[in-house]
Order: sequence, then structure tokens, then C-alpha cells
Amino acid sequence: MPGAQPLIGVFDSGVGGLTVVAALRRRLPGASILYLGDTARLPYGTKSRRTVLRYSQANVDFLERRRVDALVVACNTASAMALDDLVVRAPHWGVLEPGASAAVASARRHVGVIATESTVRSGAYEEAIRRLDPRLRVSQQACPLLVPLVEEGWEEDEITGRIVARYLEPLLAEGIDTLLLGCTHYPMLRGVLERVCGPEVTLVDSAESTGALVEQALRGRGWTDGAGPESASVRLFATDAGPRFARLAERILGEPATLEWIDVDESGTGGTLRIGEEVGTS
Amino acid sequence: MPGAQPLIGVFDSGVGGLTVVAALRRRLPGASILYLGDTARLPYGTKSRRTVLRYSQANVDFLERRRVDALVVACNTASAMALDDLVVRAPHWGVLEPGASAAVASARRHVGVIATESTVRSGAYEEAIRRLDPRLRVSQQACPLLVPLVEEGWEEDEITGRIVARYLEPLLAEGIDTLLLGCTHYPMLRGVLERVCGPEVTLVDSAESTGALVEQALRGRGWTDGAGPESASVRLFATDAGPRFARLAERILGEPATLEWIDVDESGTGGTLRIGEEVGTS
Repeated sequence: MPGAQPLIGVFDSGVGGLTVVAALRRRLPGASILYLGDTARLPYGTKSRRTVLRYSQANVDFLERRRVDALVVACNTASAMALDDLVVRAPHWGVLEPGASAAVASARRHVGVIATESTVRSGAYEEAIRRLDPRLRVSQQACPLLVPLVEEGWEEDEITGRIVARYLEPLLAEGIDTLLLGCTHYPMLRGVLERVCGPEVTLVDSAESTGALVEQALRGRGWTDGAGPESASVRLFATDAGPRFARLAERILGEPATLEWIDVDESGTGGTLRIGEEVGTS
Repeated sequence: MPGAQPLIGVFDSGVGGLTVVAALRRRLPGASILYLGDTARLPYGTKSRRTVLRYSQANVDFLERRRVDALVVACNTASAMALDDLVVRAPHWGVLEPGASAAVASARRHVGVIATESTVRSGAYEEAIRRLDPRLRVSQQACPLLVPLVEEGWEEDEITGRIVARYLEPLLAEGIDTLLLGCTHYPMLRGVLERVCGPEVTLVDSAESTGALVEQALRGRGWTDGAGPESASVRLFATDAGPRFARLAERILGEPATLEWIDVDESGTGGTLRIGEEVGTS
């Protein structure tokens, strides 16, 4: 209940949403977090609205059965395609509106948005930005290879630099002044994105602005840091196990991470949950 | 029944398995084919054995409910991780053994295998090749970026050439004389793979050798071309819809392709099937 420390549920298609968890931990050190990465069915970014909605609802149901006080859809694709149709009891937020707000706050004339294919096709970022400031120009670019490059651990590789330059070329040629990172994996590529964009372009990251929004909302509802960070816990679940996910989780969180394997019933209507072995034993 | 034209069921995690369908159509022009691409849950190549087995069984059950006479697991990851544990009534084959046989037939001393992360981790190709010829040396290389590059349509891009060169460097340095393409997407990259490998290395493709094995087995069981190609049909199903899959299917088959959306019940035990709209309408 408000006054005490909140339990925040966070889900993403994979481990990229841990960039939002990292932001939440910095801002709400007393909050406990339950994270669910739907690694058995990732990526969402190439899939249809129907499929993304079905998977997202199953993730919500899993977190709500564990009595979260608030819920964050830390996946841009799910935020863009499913958020409005999800059935959620707890107060909840996606990463799309906070990302759009941050882009509008930074932009002078022209925002570039990079995201997955599905997010770009939905047009949700363009719509959200235009709703906040109809004078801004918005250009979008789908970047399907960036998530696999992060998952391969090639963030600092020169090949990644060339692929990023290829994707950004049309946006930079059009003179964007702000680049919105419309996928939770992309903050891992901030270094190469900054080098390719140069100092004229401001990078905006929806993980950080989502953290700020959730902090403000929860503090406004009376939640506190309670007994402080020592009594806060972070528990990470994933629907599929594999060492690659654990490695990436550690890179994002900057600390050792244990992912617990869990079977989210696809019907999303109260199916059994089998808490299984940890990552790497499969 | 034998004597007539067979109905062959083929599944893959996505549309890469259509390389096997193309080989089957050349060799068995009278056969009808039901293809299922599990596009809602692809890729399999980063996932655990448990998850790949569960998804593969659901695909088998879908095809068997449609009374296929034979079944091909046209996915290297599923062949490597799940084939031995699948419950299948019809005669069935994976792509792993045919690929290994073709590599052994070509190799002089040293086979290089490129495949997804899960296939490499399973060690199944190395085992199958060594079982056929214990004197051969086998080196493996996981290539997680090659499937996304094919899906992006960058088969002939110079960036793809650099990534392929990076992956093959250790294999070429070790002096492989045969390269086994251990993923059904990789035949789409034959051009760049041949350029990087040079004329000293023979490329072996499991799609073609699987087509040969299935042809031999079915003709051996008395199946014929019946009334010929005119009466043969090819029907393509996918568990998720999206224009990218249809585009890629057309590139692989070399002819216009229509994917029908279909919901494979995840339990794989006789759930309802809802035949839905075609790709691109979701």
C-alpha cells in the first residue's frame, strides 16, 4: 500500500527492458522489481499486432498474479502495438509516451526515430510526437539488425558502426536535430550512435524518461523508499533460458544477474506457472 | 497411399525451410506440400532444447492433423535439438543427417560447419559427421547475424561480406576444405559465402541433400508423380503474418507466394486452428 515500498512489475520481449529497470533502480532505490523477459517468443519487433497483444497480455497476467503495485511495459513494440488494448488492474505505463515527451522537450525542428520494424510500421511514435507538438517534423527508420548486433555483443565493433551509419544516413541527410532511441536495446549502442550522429544531434532514450515518469507517478501516489535499498529486491524471470540472455542481462545491469526460467501459459488466463531451473542449465 | 502422389508436410521456425521445399519441388514435381513456418515464435536458434521441442511438437501435430504422408523437419535447430524426441506417426526426416552425409561425401580432411548458436551448442553436426567418418576433423562456428541479414534482404551487401568474412576467418585459417551450411537460411547467402571461401572450399547445402533423401525414400515406398505437377499443390502456413515473411518467401521460392495465417495451439494436443487472413492484413 502507498506509504510503503512499491513492487513494480516490468516486462519486455527479452532482456533489453532491463535498461528501464536500471533507470528505475537509480530513481526508486527502495522499490522492489519483478522483471519478466519473454525470451521464448522474442523478438516482438517483427511480429503482428495480434501476436504482440496476445503475448503481452500473458506477461501482464503473470505479473498481476504476483500482486505488483504498478506495471511498466518496457518494450517499445508492445507499447506501440498493444498498450491501449491490454487489460491491467494496476497503474501502468509504456515507454512510448515518455520517449515521445523527451524527444519533444529536446527537439528544435526535426526528430528522427529509430525502432523495430513493427514499431515503425505502427506509426505510434510519429503520432505521439505530433500530438504533443504538431509543428515538429518526424522521420522514422526501422533498424532490424541492431538488436541482433547487441545480442551478439558487437556494440563497439566497426561493423556495427557501418550498419548504424547506413541506417542513420537518410535521417542525418534530412537534418534531424534529435534522435529518439525507440527500442530498449538501443541505449547499449549509445557510444556508436553518438559517434555517427555527431554533436549536432541530441540522443533521447525512452528508458531514462520512463524511469522519471514512473518515479513521479509513484511518489505522487504516496509510495516511498520505505526501509530503503537494503530491503528492496530485484527478481528476474525469463520464459526461455540460455547463457546469452544472462550475459546480456549482466552487461545491461552492470552487476551479476540470475534469470529464473518460467513458463508463462500462453492463454494468459490463469495457467500454471512452473518455476524452473536457472539460465544455462537447459 | 503409395502409388499416388504424396502429401509432404514441412516445417521450419520461419521461411528459411522453403529452401527445402524448393528442392522437393524440383525432385518430386508431383508431390503436394503443406508448409508451416512458426514465424510467431522464431527464431529457434537462440532458444533452449525444451522450448524448441515444445514448439516443434506443436508444428508436427498441426501437420499430422492434416494427414501428411511424410514429414520433413526443415529447420536445423529443431533437427539438432528435437528430432529424436518428437512423436511423429508419418515417416519423417530432419535436415541434419542429410547435411552431414553430404559433407562427408565432399570432405577430404576437414569440415567447417556454420549454424545458429543453439545448433552449434548441441554439437549434433559434429557428432553426425564423426559417426559417418571418424577420421574427419570438424570445426563449428555460430553465426547469429546471418539470419537477420537474410531477413533484411542484404544478401549481396558489402557489410554482409564483411560479417561473413569475420565469421569464417577462424575456419579458413584452420584449412577447412568443405563448408556445411547448417541453417536453411544460408543457401540464400551462397554467393557471398563462395566469394569469401574461394574455390578451394566446397559448399554443402542440407536443403539439396534433404530433398534427395526424401525423394529416394518416397520413391522407394512406391509413391509416384501421379497425375504430374498440374495436380500438385503447395500451401504455405505461418503462425504470424507480416509482409517481411511474404517477401522473403518469394525470394526463396522464386515465384509469388501467399502465406496463410494460422494459430497453432501451443499445447500441441489438438487445440483449435483458426485459419485467418493472409499475410499483410494484420
